[in-house]
Amino acid sequence: MAVRAAVAGASGYAGGEVLRLLLAHPEVEIGALTGNSNAGQRLGALQPHLFPLADRVLQETTADVLAGHDVVFLALPHGQSAAVAEQLGPDVLVVDMGADFRLKDAADWEAFYGSPHAGTWPYGLPELPGGRAALEGSKRIAVPGCYPTAVSLALVPAYAAGLVEHEAVIVAASGTSGAGKAAKPHLLGSEVMGNMSPYGVGGGHRHTPEMIQNLSAAAGERVAVSFTPTLAPMPRGILATCSARTVPGVSAETVRAAYEKAYADEPFVHLLPEGQWPQTAAVYGSNAVQIQVAHDEATGRVIVISAIDNLTKGTAGGAIQSMNIALGLDETTGLSTIGVAP
Amino acid sequence: MAVRAAVAGASGYAGGEVLRLLLAHPEVEIGALTGNSNAGQRLGALQPHLFPLADRVLQETTADVLAGHDVVFLALPHGQSAAVAEQLGPDVLVVDMGADFRLKDAADWEAFYGSPHAGTWPYGLPELPGGRAALEGSKRIAVPGCYPTAVSLALVPAYAAGLVEHEAVIVAASGTSGAGKAAKPHLLGSEVMGNMSPYGVGGGHRHTPEMIQNLSAAAGERVAVSFTPTLAPMPRGILATCSARTVPGVSAETVRAAYEKAYADEPFVHLLPEGQWPQTAAVYGSNAVQIQVAHDEATGRVIVISAIDNLTKGTAGGAIQSMNIALGLDETTGLSTIGVAP
Amino acid sequence: MAVRAAVAGASGYAGGEVLRLLLAHPEVEIGALTGNSNAGQRLGALQPHLFPLADRVLQETTADVLAGHDVVFLALPHGQSAAVAEQLGPDVLVVDMGADFRLKDAADWEAFYGSPHAGTWPYGLPELPGGRAALEGSKRIAVPGCYPTAVSLALVPAYAAGLVEHEAVIVAASGTSGAGKAAKPHLLGSEVMGNMSPYGVGGGHRHTPEMIQNLSAAAGERVAVSFTPTLAPMPRGILATCSARTVPGVSAETVRAAYEKAYADEPFVHLLPEGQWPQTAAVYGSNAVQIQVAHDEATGRVIVISAIDNLTKGTAGGAIQSMNIALGLDETTGLSTIGVAP
Amino acid sequence: MAVRAAVAGASGYAGGEVLRLLLAHPEVEIGALTGNSNAGQRLGALQPHLFPLADRVLQETTADVLAGHDVVFLALPHGQSAAVAEQLGPDVLVVDMGADFRLKDAADWEAFYGSPHAGTWPYGLPELPGGRAALEGSKRIAVPGCYPTAVSLALVPAYAAGLVEHEAVIVAASGTSGAGKAAKPHLLGSEVMGNMSPYGVGGGHRHTPEMIQNLSAAAGERVAVSFTPTLAPMPRGILATCSARTVPGVSAETVRAAYEKAYADEPFVHLLPEGQWPQTAAVYGSNAVQIQVAHDEATGRVIVISAIDNLTKGTAGGAIQSMNIALGLDETTGLSTIGVAP
Repeated sequence: MAVRAAVAGASGYAGGEVLRLLLAHPEVEIGALTGNSNAGQRLGALQPHLFPLADRVLQETTADVLAGHDVVFLALPHGQSAAVAEQLGPDVLVVDMGADFRLKDAADWEAFYGSPHAGTWPYGLPELPGGRAALEGSKRIAVPGCYPTAVSLALVPAYAAGLVEHEAVIVAASGTSGAGKAAKPHLLGSEVMGNMSPYGVGGGHRHTPEMIQNLSAAAGERVAVSFTPTLAPMPRGILATCSARTVPGVSAETVRAAYEKAYADEPFVHLLPEGQWPQTAAVYGSNAVQIQVAHDEATGRVIVISAIDNLTKGTAGGAIQSMNIALGLDETTGLSTIGVAP
Repeated sequence: MAVRAAVAGASGYAGGEVLRLLLAHPEVEIGALTGNSNAGQRLGALQPHLFPLADRVLQETTADVLAGHDVVFLALPHGQSAAVAEQLGPDVLVVDMGADFRLKDAADWEAFYGSPHAGTWPYGLPELPGGRAALEGSKRIAVPGCYPTAVSLALVPAYAAGLVEHEAVIVAASGTSGAGKAAKPHLLGSEVMGNMSPYGVGGGHRHTPEMIQNLSAAAGERVAVSFTPTLAPMPRGILATCSARTVPGVSAETVRAAYEKAYADEPFVHLLPEGQWPQTAAVYGSNAVQIQVAHDEATGRVIVISAIDNLTKGTAGGAIQSMNIALGLDETTGLSTIGVAP
Repeated sequence: MAVRAAVAGASGYAGGEVLRLLLAHPEVEIGALTGNSNAGQRLGALQPHLFPLADRVLQETTADVLAGHDVVFLALPHGQSAAVAEQLGPDVLVVDMGADFRLKDAADWEAFYGSPHAGTWPYGLPELPGGRAALEGSKRIAVPGCYPTAVSLALVPAYAAGLVEHEAVIVAASGTSGAGKAAKPHLLGSEVMGNMSPYGVGGGHRHTPEMIQNLSAAAGERVAVSFTPTLAPMPRGILATCSARTVPGVSAETVRAAYEKAYADEPFVHLLPEGQWPQTAAVYGSNAVQIQVAHDEATGRVIVISAIDNLTKGTAGGAIQSMNIALGLDETTGLSTIGVAP
Repeated sequence: MAVRAAVAGASGYAGGEVLRLLLAHPEVEIGALTGNSNAGQRLGALQPHLFPLADRVLQETTADVLAGHDVVFLALPHGQSAAVAEQLGPDVLVVDMGADFRLKDAADWEAFYGSPHAGTWPYGLPELPGGRAALEGSKRIAVPGCYPTAVSLALVPAYAAGLVEHEAVIVAASGTSGAGKAAKPHLLGSEVMGNMSPYGVGGGHRHTPEMIQNLSAAAGERVAVSFTPTLAPMPRGILATCSARTVPGVSAETVRAAYEKAYADEPFVHLLPEGQWPQTAAVYGSNAVQIQVAHDEATGRVIVISAIDNLTKGTAGGAIQSMNIALGLDETTGLSTIGVAP
C-alpha cells in the first residue's frame, strides 16, 4: 500500500524539488499540496517543470488539509514548522526541511535565529556516525541545511578519525536556488549572472552552529569553524572547500584510507579516484555527493572538497533518503546518483 | 529478459545522454560502450555525472565490440554511421542519432552534407502523422535533428490542418550542447556566456532540408522554410519561435482547436493552457515538449513556440522513445515529463 | 563650461548606465541624483560599480532638486515623466528614457499603455532618415525603446530603399536588465539562468507600435510587424533577427549595397564584413551596433541581424548621443564603440 | 608626443584586454599587433569587440615587427617572453604579462614551471610596499598573476602590520577567461555553465609561490599559503576569500585601521564601508579592487575578501598602471574605477 505524502510549501524551490523526487518514488502517492500565498493556483503555473502535477491546485496550509497523510514534508519559512507539526499527531512522519529542529543547543538557536528554540528532532544525515540508527522508526526528522550537508560529509571522516586539528576553514559556493524563490533585488538574474559575491562573512551565517554541532560530535570535542559562503552564478549546486591542519603523524595515505573506509559502503557518497575533482555539474539533480581529498605537505593541511546539489542531497533528496530509513524502505528508493549534464 | 544495448560514441554529449536515460530504463541492460579517441579510458573521467557506469572502460568502435546486442545506439560524427550499421546485421535494432539516414532526397543530402547519400531509415518522430506506424517493428531508426524536432512539433499541426500558407519563418535559440563536445574556440565558456549569436543564417543550416521534408509532408506540398539558429548562453534547451500567415477564414479558435486535437493523446507534447508560455528550463532533462500558439490579428500570422531539451527529446530521449515503439514496449518506458528546475 | 546634468531614477539600471557613461563624458558634470524609494541612501550601496559616485546620496525626485541643471535625464517608470518634465522649464534639456513621448499616435499609446497620451517629443535615434535634424537644438528628447532601436537599425535601410515587402517578422532575444531592477519572481537568477522564454507573443509587446512607426516612416506606408521578444540568460544585450520578403528584382548585391550606403558614415553602426555575424558580447557596454544581412534565395527573404547593448545604445548611450546632438557637441563625445569582452 | 605601443599576442584574452584599455589611453598610439598562429588575419574577426582596430592585420611575432616602439606588451605563453625581450634592446619598455619574470627564487620557478629560470624583473603591483619605487623608470616589468594580485592586495596589509600568523588559507573563484582562449574540452561553455569546479588543489597551482613571495616580503619571514583555485561560471572576475589567525591583542578595530591606512591614498583599491561586501560584478571591466575585512571572534581569524577583474586589474590594467609609473605618467591615466554592471 502506497505511502501517502503531503507537501506544505509546494510552490517554493524545496517544495518543488521534493515533488520532483516523489514523482519518481515507487512507494509514494502524492496527496495534498499547500502554499499560503499561492493557495488556489494551479501547480502548473508555479512549477511548470512538474508536468504530471500541472492540474493540481494548491490549498491553504492547515492541519485539516495535511491530516490523513502518512508523511508530511514541511517546506516552510524558518519558525513556522513547530506550529504545524504540533497539530499533525505523533503517528504522522513529519519531515521538516526548515531549520527549526536541527540544533541541539537552545542558546545557539536563539543567537542565530532570534526566536525561542522549538526543540530538536532526529537529524536527517544518515551518513553521520550513528546517523541511520537515529532515523529508524522515527516520526520526526530535521533535514540538515544544504551547507552543513556538504561540509559535514567533507570533514566528518577526518574528525572522526582524529586526523586534524579542531579548527576548520571552509569556503563554499552555492547556486542561487539556495536563497529561495522570494523575489529580492540582489537575487535578480541581472545581479547574479557574471557575479561571485560573499555573504554572512565572519561567522554570521546560520548554518555555522549546525556545522560545529556535526564536526564536534565527530571529533568528541568542540571544533571551531570559519565559514564563508559565496553566491555563484548558477541555479543549483554547492562546492565546499574545507581544510584543517593535520595532527602529527598523518600522511596523505592515512587521510585517503580514512575516507575510503568511511565511504566504502555509502550509496550516495563517492570518494573520487585520485586526480579527479568534484564539480557541481556532475551531481546536478542527483542525490550523489562527490568528495576528494588532498594533503598539502607544504602547509600541513588536509583539503577536502565536496560537491552536492543543494536542492537534492542538500534538501529534498536528503529528506527522502531519511524518510526511506524512517519508514523501513530501502534507503535509495526513488533516489538517483545520476546527474544531468552537461 | 532484458534488452541489451550498446552505445557507440559514449564519450560525447549525445552518447552520455542516451546512457543517462538508459540507466533509468527498466527493460534495458547497458552493454558495450565505445569511443575511438577515448578508448581505454574510464567513463567516470569522461562522463562524471554517470556514476553507476564510472568504472566502465571505453572500447574501440568495431563490429566485434558492438555485436551481440539487441540495440546499438550510434552517436557518431555525421557520415560514419553507414559503415558501422552495415556490419551489424538485419536483426539488430540500430538507432542512429547522427544525420546520415534522415533525408529522403539524395540531392538535399549531397547539397547540405557534401557526401554521397547513404539512404533513408524510418524517422524517429512518433508524433508525426503516421510516425508510430513507421517505427513499429523497424530495425533501423534515424533519430531527427534537435531543431527539426522542435520545429516540426510546433508547425506540423498547422500544416496538416491546412491553416497556414506554405512559408514558415523560424528563429530558434539552442543551448551549447547542441554544438557537441569537440573543443572549438567560439564554444568556450568565455565566449558563450553573456552572448547571443546567430549562425548558419540565410538557409545554410543542415537541419533546414529536414524541416522542409517534415512540414511539406504534412502540408501535402512544398513548404518554404526561413530558418535562423542562434546560440544561447545555456548548456541545454531549444526555444523555437515559428510563424506563418494564416489562410483566409482561420481564427484563433480554429488554430487552438487544431493543436488541442493534434496533441490530446500525446504523452510527451503539452499544449500549455492559454496565457502560459514554453520555457526551456521547464523541460530541462525531460522528454517533454511545451507548445503554445498565438494568433496575431494585426499581421494575420500564427506564432507557435516550442521548448524542448535538445539532448533529451531532441536527441537521446527521442531515440529511446522510438526504440520503445520499435521493440513493442510502452512508448514512455524509461522516459519522463518531469524537468529539473530551477 | 561644463554641462550640468541631473539623473532622476539613479538607482535603476537605466539610471546607473547613464551615470556610468556620463562619468566618462568630458563635457558633463554630474549634478543631482534622485530616486524616490531609495532617497537618503548612498549610491555606493545601490550602484557599487560606480565607484567615483559612491558617496553621493540620493534625493527625492522633485522639481526643486532637479532645477538648475542644463540637462535632466529621466529614468522613471512609464507614465511619470510628463509631470516632472512640465516643471522643468523650456530651457532645460529633458531626455526621457521612458516610453511616454515616443509614439506619435495617441490611439496607439492608449491601446498599449492604457493611459492618456502625454505627447510626442523629438525621437532620439539619430541614424533614422532625418533623425539628426530633429534633434539639433531640441530641448526635449524621447529616447527609443531598446528593441525598436535594434530593429529599426536593422530594417530601416531595407524599407527606405524599397527592397522588401511591408511585413516584417522579428524575433529578438534580450538580456534580463531590459526588464529592470524591480524584483519579480520570474526574473530571479534561479529562474533565468539556463532558460530561454518568450513573452508578449502575438503582438502584445509595447515596443511593437514604436517599431511600426519607424519602419512605416521609412517605407512611406504602413508596415506590419510580427514581433516576438524572448528573455535570454544574460544580463545585457539584444540580438534581433529580422526578415522580410524581397520585392521583385532585388538581389543579395542590391541589399548589401543599400546597407553599405546607409551606414557608411555612421559612427556607431557597423555593417560587418561578409561572413561575420553580430553577437551581443562584442557590443557589451559599448554604443556600437553590429549588423549583418543575408539574402536567402530559397525563400526570397532578406534576413537582417543586429546586436546592441540594450542599456547602452538601447537606452543610456542613445540618450547621450542624442544629448550631444541637441547641445551641439560632437555626437560621439563620451561614447565608445569598444565592447568589454570576453 | 605619443607613446607608441606594440602588443605581441594580440589575439588572446590578455592581448585583447590590453588593446581595449590602450584604445582609451590618451598618451598611447597603438602600433604593431602580432599573433603567430593568427598572423595575416584581421583583428576584427578575432576580437570583434575592438571595433576601432577591426581592420588591423596581425603580423608574426618577430623582433623586426616589434622594433621601433616605445613599449612592447608581451601576452605570450609562459616561457616565450625571454627570447623576445632579449632582442628588444634596453631602451624599450617591455611589459610581460606572462609568468616568466615574476619569481625571485629560481628553485621555485623550476619546481612549478619545469624550465630554467629566465630572471626577475621589477614587479608590477604598485600597491605593494615599495612597489612604485621599483617601477619608476624601469624598462622591464613583470605583471603579476591574476590570483596573486587579488590575494596580495587582500592580505599584505595584515602581514605588513604584523596582525596575523604566518599561515594563510585562500580559496578563490575565477572567471573562465583566466584559463585563456586555447580551446580545451573542460572549458567549453557546456561544461562551465552551471558548474563550480576546483583545480590545482593541494598547493599545485603555479601562482602559489608568487603569493608566498609577496606575503613573505610583507611579513618579513616566510608565510605558508594554502591556496585552492576554483573555476566559476562567468567570463571574468576573481573573488578571493583569504583568512589567517590573528596574533594576540588584535581586535576588529586594529584590523580595520590597518586596512584604512594602507589603502587611504590608493586610487584603485577601495576598502568598502562596513556592511558592504566585494562582488566581481562591481569591478567588471574596471581596474578597481574591492576589499572588505571581517574579524571572526569565535575563531580568532581575520577574513579578507577581495574582488578584481582578472583581465583588467589582474592582467592588462595592472600592466598599464605599471607602464604609466615606469614612463612617468600619472598612474591612473587611461584607467577607470567604473565597472560595467549589471
